[in-house]
Parts: sequence; structure tokens; C-alpha cells
Amino acid sequence: MGEAPLPSEHLLVIFNQEIPLHVKEWAQKRFSDIELTLYQSTRGVKTPPELYHNATILVTFIDLPEPEDSFNLKIIHTLSAGVDHLLNNPIFKYSEIPFTTSSGIHGPPIAEWTIMNWLVSARKYSILHEAQKEHKWDKETPWMETSYDQVGQKVGILGYGSIGRQIARVSQALGMTVYAYTASPRPTAESRHDNGFIVPGTGDPEGTIPVSWHHGTGKEAIHEFLSLGLDHLVVSVPLTEQTTNLLGAEEFALLAKHSTNPAKKPYVTNISRGKVINQDDLIEALKSGQLGGAALDVTNPEPLPSDHPLWSAPNVQITPHISGSGREYIPRSLEIVRINIDRTRQGLPLINAYRRGNGY
Amino acid sequence: MGEAPLPSEHLLVIFNQEIPLHVKEWAQKRFSDIELTLYQSTRGVKTPPELYHNATILVTFIDLPEPEDSFNLKIIHTLSAGVDHLLNNPIFKYSEIPFTTSSGIHGPPIAEWTIMNWLVSARKYSILHEAQKEHKWDKETPWMETSYDQVGQKVGILGYGSIGRQIARVSQALGMTVYAYTASPRPTAESRHDNGFIVPGTGDPEGTIPVSWHHGTGKEAIHEFLSLGLDHLVVSVPLTEQTTNLLGAEEFALLAKHSTNPAKKPYVTNISRGKVINQDDLIEALKSGQLGGAALDVTNPEPLPSDHPLWSAPNVQITPHISGSGREYIPRSLEIVRINIDRTRQGLPLINAYRRGNGY
Repeated sequence: MGEAPLPSEHLLVIFNQEIPLHVKEWAQKRFSDIELTLYQSTRGVKTPPELYHNATILVTFIDLPEPEDSFNLKIIHTLSAGVDHLLNNPIFKYSEIPFTTSSGIHGPPIAEWTIMNWLVSARKYSILHEAQKEHKWDKETPWMETSYDQVGQKVGILGYGSIGRQIARVSQALGMTVYAYTASPRPTAESRHDNGFIVPGTGDPEGTIPVSWHHGTGKEAIHEFLSLGLDHLVVSVPLTEQTTNLLGAEEFALLAKHSTNPAKKPYVTNISRGKVINQDDLIEALKSGQLGGAALDVTNPEPLPSDHPLWSAPNVQITPHISGSGREYIPRSLEIVRINIDRTRQGLPLINAYRRGNGY
Repeated sequence: MGEAPLPSEHLLVIFNQEIPLHVKEWAQKRFSDIELTLYQSTRGVKTPPELYHNATILVTFIDLPEPEDSFNLKIIHTLSAGVDHLLNNPIFKYSEIPFTTSSGIHGPPIAEWTIMNWLVSARKYSILHEAQKEHKWDKETPWMETSYDQVGQKVGILGYGSIGRQIARVSQALGMTVYAYTASPRPTAESRHDNGFIVPGTGDPEGTIPVSWHHGTGKEAIHEFLSLGLDHLVVSVPLTEQTTNLLGAEEFALLAKHSTNPAKKPYVTNISRGKVINQDDLIEALKSGQLGGAALDVTNPEPLPSDHPLWSAPNVQITPHISGSGREYIPRSLEIVRINIDRTRQGLPLINAYRRGNGY
């Protein structure tokens, strides 16, 4: 076993929802040179161990084999951006099978979700939507006063990863100015590169879009960043002990204090995790008018209970943690596998490999 | 009269709505070196002729003096992109006072309106909006199937002026491919330049964004363009005899026939005039599924009567001709006047000057 080389790769994709037809068809074409098994798992039901025996590459959200069933596995690819949810699994802890992640595929959808929310808020789309439902040609709303555009606005991006970079790219095209914030310093051109998977034609591969880079993990550094006179703050950091409750009353007050835009108070966009923001403080800042609005794809808790006051805070747009979802999700993730199969054949190192022991 | 030079310019701004406070304050600062009169006219009431006597520069939507009251006028600046509505006015026909237009200021707002509509449609914002109203964390909608993003989509822009160029700029940032269409050929780099006013940091000044340029005024040329396999068609041409009913059943069928996108049929965006599209044919194409959707800021007629079937055609988003409106409108238009005052002082030619007898 493992002595004679397998005739070819065998790609096993385990998906814990129904696999859409267009994904099946796409995958069969894209992996026509190797064996492919698409399997739909059922929540709470253990996937049959035999399924794993012939697989050389496994693609999965949460299903993992026991170490003794993984004897042919050469790569385990997660359909998520991180591996946090797999850290305690024996095959992660005790095997040396390389893990690759889907980091990088979330840039376009989440950037689009972000820009959509900004424009919907600034251009009063909900008023237009309601008017259309009533077949009403609304010339009563003072559009010259109520709408504004994004040109010249300053956006600060907390966490300049693949998502932040695509938001930056579109922001720049809209005529905005981008400020980047990272935990560790990025003093050189080299250190500003994006070295992960990038959806072709998107992002900021060289890190040249921001007009300035800022960094730090302490309150002081963050507070300096929040004092730049930002019109938009995008929260795109991973949830860690350090980023829990990173933004609260003090931070919102700083944003408001340094805002110089007569048209609007600062707008907060959270695409990270609900716990990065002190939600009670956010509601207060929206109510008091310190903040001009917020777009939240994540809340604390999730699902947000229907009687939670956040739902009806002023100028808030809440969506059910779906900003990364879309038809492209699975094909784009499998594209990373395709690249790595090709790279393996060429003797090149894997892209998007997770370094065990690194934490992120 | 006209012998002794006036001590300074006198800028008269006539606005046929209430002039917002922020505009007044902005204008007083921006023109602090000259005399400034802001006047609110009333529809149907003739503006007092004396008002014009001292003005050297007039800014107006529709109010114009009789030739005999314009003896000090050196520039007439229209708050609209064109002068079509003024063509028969004596001062336009018989005087030689230069007219300047606001062409170029509509790029950012109308591009934002366009991108907003694309994202709202593709990411199913209306479902999210309705769910939030009900305080519902909607995980029932199959987001992985119903949403899609813009990466890789092809957008054809019929009429590559300042608006089309800013749409192109943001489209490119979203990862899309842009095809330009103009009436006259643009074979050289020079001929592709945008020579009008451009909002700084926006647009496509050099015309380098499109992957290909197409042109013509006949059906054949248009049909070739519609056969490129476009995912989006943006209609941004002026309304002329030639562009009236430019797009109808035949054209929508062509778009549909050449579409290769499994996720969606072609999407039509109209920011020009309602009459450029055969509206009955549009409704049919939306109903039959030849078109995947449409965003319309203009209709035929306007206002669109509440019992008109267009309101409830499938996947249509209609807004009441407001895509260019916003807080920035007047200041941005006045910025062109500021530039021209400064250029006049330096002996430079006016920007955005309308060439009488040219037609556009």
C-alpha cells in the first residue's frame, strides 16, 4: 500500500449541501484528466470510511477521515478560508498531510456585497425599491439632497487581506482614497504583496492602492488609524482574543470626532465576526448619530434573534452571513485544487498551504 | 457700456429649486474673490430682467435673459449636460456669448447608480431588504445558487462618454471586461481621449480601459456589437433621430442568442432616454427570459403611469430619472465655472464650451 504509485489522482469532494448541477458539470470538465467523486454528506451522519480509501486529494468543509482511512491522501483542501474548525481533528493534529485553504476566493463576492451596501445606503435604494413596488414615480424625495456619491471619500480597511484588497480596488475606481491597516508592519514593497490565491483580474496583488499603511495590535495604534478622518471603516480582521471587542464606544466617538464630511457621519462595514464589535455600543452610536450607518453581514449572536434591537437601529443594513456566498464559490475553491494538482506535477510547492502551528 | 472693464466678475446662479444651504456655503467660499448672486427662480414666473444687468457669468438650468439684458455676460453655463432645451432661445441663436455645459459631472453618480443596480440584482438585495424588515435571519434562500458576482462578465457600453467611462472604470475594478461603442470611429489613441471636464480621480481619460472599440450608426454595426457575447449592455447614447428605437426585439434576441453565461441572461441598463428602447419589446424580452433583467432610470413616457406594465415586468428595476442627482451636483457644475474663470484670467480657452452648429 503506497508502494506502487497510483495511476492518477483521485479527487474526492465532500459537500454538506446538495451539489448544484452547474458545479457538477463544471467540475467534470475541469478535472476530466483525473478520477473525480462528488459526495453529498448529511449533517450528523458519519461519512463511510471506505470513501476515503482511494482518494489522493480531499476537498471538504467539515468531513474528515480518521487517520487510518487516509493512507492515500496527499492534500486536504478546505472549502473555507481558514481551518479553525478543524484544529482539534486528529488528522490535522497528528498527520502531516498538507492542508490547503480557500483563502482568496472571498474577495470579489464580499467586496461586491460591501460596495452594494454603501451605494444602497448613499443612494437611498430602499426608498426607490418601495416606490417601485407601489408603481410610484417618486419625484417628491429631494434626491439632490438625500443622495451623495463616494468620490473623495476616505476608506480605512482594518485587515488588508484578499477581501480588503478587492474592496480597495473598487473603492479606488469609485474615486475614493484607501488607508490600510494590518497587525504586523509592512514597511517594504515586498511585505505588501498578496502571496495567496488571487481571483484573476481582482485585488491589489502588489499592495500599491493604499495611500498609507498603518499597523499595530494595541489600542493606541488603532486609535491613530481611527483619527484619520475616515468616511468608511471596513472591519476585515480575523476574530482573535486581541480583536474581540476591538471597536466600541470610544472608537466610534473617535471616528465621529475626526469626520470632516458635511454630508455624512462615518459608516462602518463589518464582514469579519460579530464579536469584533461591541454591539450595544454600535447601536448607541447609530442612535446618537455618531455613526451615519452600518452594513453588517455578521452579528453576535447568529442567527440574530428577531427581537434584537440591532435589527431596527437607525441606518443599519443586516444580512445573514451570506456576503461570501454565490454560484462561483465552489468552482473558485476547486480552481485552487486544480492549480495545486498542476503545480504538484511540475514539482512546485502548493499555493494556499496552511502552515500548522502558525495560527493564521 | 462695455468700454470700461468691470472691476471683477459677477457670477449669477439661477436655480429653479430651493438652493440647499450646503451649496450656498460652499459657493460663497469657492467664489469669495468675485461677486456672487444666488437666485431661486419660480417655474412659470419670469426672472426680473434687471437681475442680469450686472452679471458677467450666468449659471442656469432654463432661465435666460433677453439679448438686450445680457450686455455684460461673457459666459453662460448650463447646469445640464447639454443645451438641447435652449436651442431655440434667442440668446442662443443670435448672440455669440459662449455657452459652457455641465457635461462630465454625471459620471460618478450615474456610474454608482448603475453598479448599485447590477449588484442589487445579482446579489438579490431586495430579498435581504424584505427579510430585514421582518427581522428575519434568512438562511432559507439558497444564496450559493441565487447570488453571483461580476468577475469575468462582459459589459458593452453603447456611447463611451464621461458616464460610460466611469462605468468602465468601476467595471474593470470588479474584474469585468469592457467593450466600447461610439458613433464615429476612434482608431487612434488621441481620438480615444476624453477632452471634456472629468471629475478628478474618475473616468477613463485616455480611453485605455476597453479591450476593443466598435463604431457605426447603422444597424449592422450595432448588431455586430450585440453579438460579442455581452453579459451587460449599457445604453448611454444621446437621443437623436438615429438612436430612437435603437434597441428592440431583434436586438434583444441577438443579445440572448450570443450569451454564453450559464448564470444569467444579458442585463440591460438604460441611463439615456426612454425612447432609445422599444419599451414593448423590452417587456416581452424580460417576460420571455431573453433578457435576465434591466435597470431603467428613464422610461417612455415620464413619469411612467402607475398602471404601465413596465413597472411589474420580471427583474426590472425602475427609478424616476434621478441617477445623476445628488449633493455633489451643483458644486461640481460650479467647479467647471471656477476652472473657466481661472482659465479666462490666464488667457486660456474655456473648457466644456458648446460649439454652436455642432449638434452635440
